[in-house]
Amino acid sequence: MADLATCLPLTRASVVEAHNLIRPFIHRTPVLTNRTIDGIASTPRTPEELNGTPFEGATPSNPKLRLWFKCENLQRIGAFKARGAFHAVERLKREPGWEAGGGFTKGVVTHSSGNHAQALALAASTAGMPAHIVMPKISAPPKVAATKGYGANVVFSGSTAAEREAVAAEVIASTGGRMVPPYDHPDIILGQGTAGLELQEQVAEAKTTTPNSKSKSGPTALLYSPTTAPSSSSTNSGLDAIMTPCGGGGLLSGTVLSAQGTGIRVFGAEPSLDGADDCARGLAQGKRIEAVKSLTIADGLRTPVGKHNWAVLTGETPESNGQGVHGVYAVGEDQIRAALRLLLERLKIVVEPSSAVPLAVVLYNEEFRRRVEAEAGPEGWDLGIVLSGGNVSLEGFAKLFPEARERT
Amino acid sequence: MADLATCLPLTRASVVEAHNLIRPFIHRTPVLTNRTIDGIASTPRTPEELNGTPFEGATPSNPKLRLWFKCENLQRIGAFKARGAFHAVERLKREPGWEAGGGFTKGVVTHSSGNHAQALALAASTAGMPAHIVMPKISAPPKVAATKGYGANVVFSGSTAAEREAVAAEVIASTGGRMVPPYDHPDIILGQGTAGLELQEQVAEAKTTTPNSKSKSGPTALLYSPTTAPSSSSTNSGLDAIMTPCGGGGLLSGTVLSAQGTGIRVFGAEPSLDGADDCARGLAQGKRIEAVKSLTIADGLRTPVGKHNWAVLTGETPESNGQGVHGVYAVGEDQIRAALRLLLERLKIVVEPSSAVPLAVVLYNEEFRRRVEAEAGPEGWDLGIVLSGGNVSLEGFAKLFPEARERT
Repeated sequence: MADLATCLPLTRASVVEAHNLIRPFIHRTPVLTNRTIDGIASTPRTPEELNGTPFEGATPSNPKLRLWFKCENLQRIGAFKARGAFHAVERLKREPGWEAGGGFTKGVVTHSSGNHAQALALAASTAGMPAHIVMPKISAPPKVAATKGYGANVVFSGSTAAEREAVAAEVIASTGGRMVPPYDHPDIILGQGTAGLELQEQVAEAKTTTPNSKSKSGPTALLYSPTTAPSSSSTNSGLDAIMTPCGGGGLLSGTVLSAQGTGIRVFGAEPSLDGADDCARGLAQGKRIEAVKSLTIADGLRTPVGKHNWAVLTGETPESNGQGVHGVYAVGEDQIRAALRLLLERLKIVVEPSSAVPLAVVLYNEEFRRRVEAEAGPEGWDLGIVLSGGNVSLEGFAKLFPEARERT
Repeated sequence: MADLATCLPLTRASVVEAHNLIRPFIHRTPVLTNRTIDGIASTPRTPEELNGTPFEGATPSNPKLRLWFKCENLQRIGAFKARGAFHAVERLKREPGWEAGGGFTKGVVTHSSGNHAQALALAASTAGMPAHIVMPKISAPPKVAATKGYGANVVFSGSTAAEREAVAAEVIASTGGRMVPPYDHPDIILGQGTAGLELQEQVAEAKTTTPNSKSKSGPTALLYSPTTAPSSSSTNSGLDAIMTPCGGGGLLSGTVLSAQGTGIRVFGAEPSLDGADDCARGLAQGKRIEAVKSLTIADGLRTPVGKHNWAVLTGETPESNGQGVHGVYAVGEDQIRAALRLLLERLKIVVEPSSAVPLAVVLYNEEFRRRVEAEAGPEGWDLGIVLSGGNVSLEGFAKLFPEARERT
């Protein structure tokens, strides 16, 4: 990982710079809209649905929402993680003395059994350097195969964080490779923020150039833009807010940076199961929660927020002017499943459960919905949602939706 | 349906005109590429896979293929059928005397339990006219609900073709509405052909404007274009061939027209189960097959090719110069399932089984693969594949992939 002293400041301008650096390597993923899902989001929940919640007996809220889905499931390696990994590697290549010090031979190291492993493997092989990936022995064989398929050297470890870190330290000692953590580093944060930047550009393009684009009252439109479009420095995107999932906080904190100075609100979405809503709880108590142990189906979001990510989310960085994330909301497992089903059956794309958490908040978190109604009024909001990834198998879906097989 | 005498000639220019007419109402759906699937398509099958086929003992072919997937599953109502329905309705509106004759009050009629029902319902309600849709009593309730959800008047009938046609005749007699058949009409053919036209435009744009676009040897790229891009009259798209599924033949015959004079070869793909490969068999015997009774999982392809469609596919229309479809290939149910799984797990989009039939041909039909190798040589082909629709539920997938639940 690039030395912290050589990192760019945590600002929107740095996200734009990161975007320029990684654009040749990533996809400019499409942004989709869907009238049916907008209609559901803009319909009050039934009073019965609020039973057993703090809003029992209250009139259900009636927010108006036009949703813009940024399809990072269609990103390379099937997840936004490609952005941060390519940015980390491209920055490393430019670090003074890195090449002379044998960096291209020593390569990079990480411990991950998920999308970051595949992303770093791809970024490293593209740059012509080795990637040493520490994975627990119990990792699913397809994930190990996929990581090896991107050219990585996979090293097995035990399953606990301590065991994995010990093996990673050994690998670093023996190879001289540089650690690239999955989320807790400025280069990763800036790379992930490029998804938010693109989303802003693409919505702005749709609103200014497409006659049948989504407007406050007009029809919806699918939206794509040439992969060559330059990074816009415009801050008038037509988006009122963006929501992303929050696990380690790389995507969410990068998105906060991408919205700096634009007036766009940024929200995070977490699973509530077993305390996986560590970001929301940490914000409430004014202190980062350092450990999470949850078996939520949103398996990308089982990690606590990282230190650098926390500083951005709380507006504690020197460049933030005190502005961090505007709010973080949590939802239950069945709500995640229901949102996931809508994305599959209505948006017709394959996403992993973590990707469905923001839509679950939008549809089922009454606290968030009340906020939209109060802040947006009858005009409503244009809300961007980052669909973070799509790495799930048919077997995974069969586990997630047991009721689907019983009905057949 | 517009009177045949008022229809445009069956030419590429008419497809361009149809595109101009329907562009405000349809999505310019994205085109996706995928290195993993290209790699599988460009790898010889094992000798064992050819056992039990006419190619047993032969050296497996080694074609090179770069695939461009046109995502009509992301089209409005979730299928390409929106194109033909909007075109039919827009042409009707312009038919001399139609409005004066009360056409906006009488509306349109069809019998369909599938995507055409929803497409016509949407097109009619958009145009401000009623749609009377005859559906078998045994239709799946979600399909009936979806069709009603687009504002249609659903009329139930028995399940046989004769019963459905009798009820449709009654509805036409009582309402004065105009019949809009699902595929066997020039207006429908020209509308469906716009998918092929867009695909050609989008690949041409990617090849000329995107630095990291797919080239003979370069990296792949996701590809989107503004929905406002004008119809290109260029015939140099960079595509060597296009393949679409073939049921009634609306999409395939429209695609043949869209490729007229461009040098692009057009192929059809069918299921072989229970004789659902009626188009291939008809071409072989020089005579259209008029009835099909198959329970293939590719349920959109259980119909025989229509008369107008057949004339286009065989190059018998006055404008065709004798050039119809370049070939039609068939695959088995397990091959369709395997291709469908790749589209779900690798391309990360939700498609219905019919959409997977062309990819199944590309991956598993040795006759087609030999043809590519022979005609394309080591350079290979850029092959466009139209993914026709995505209307399938989680329950549908559970039925299609019983092994997925057993493994969980």
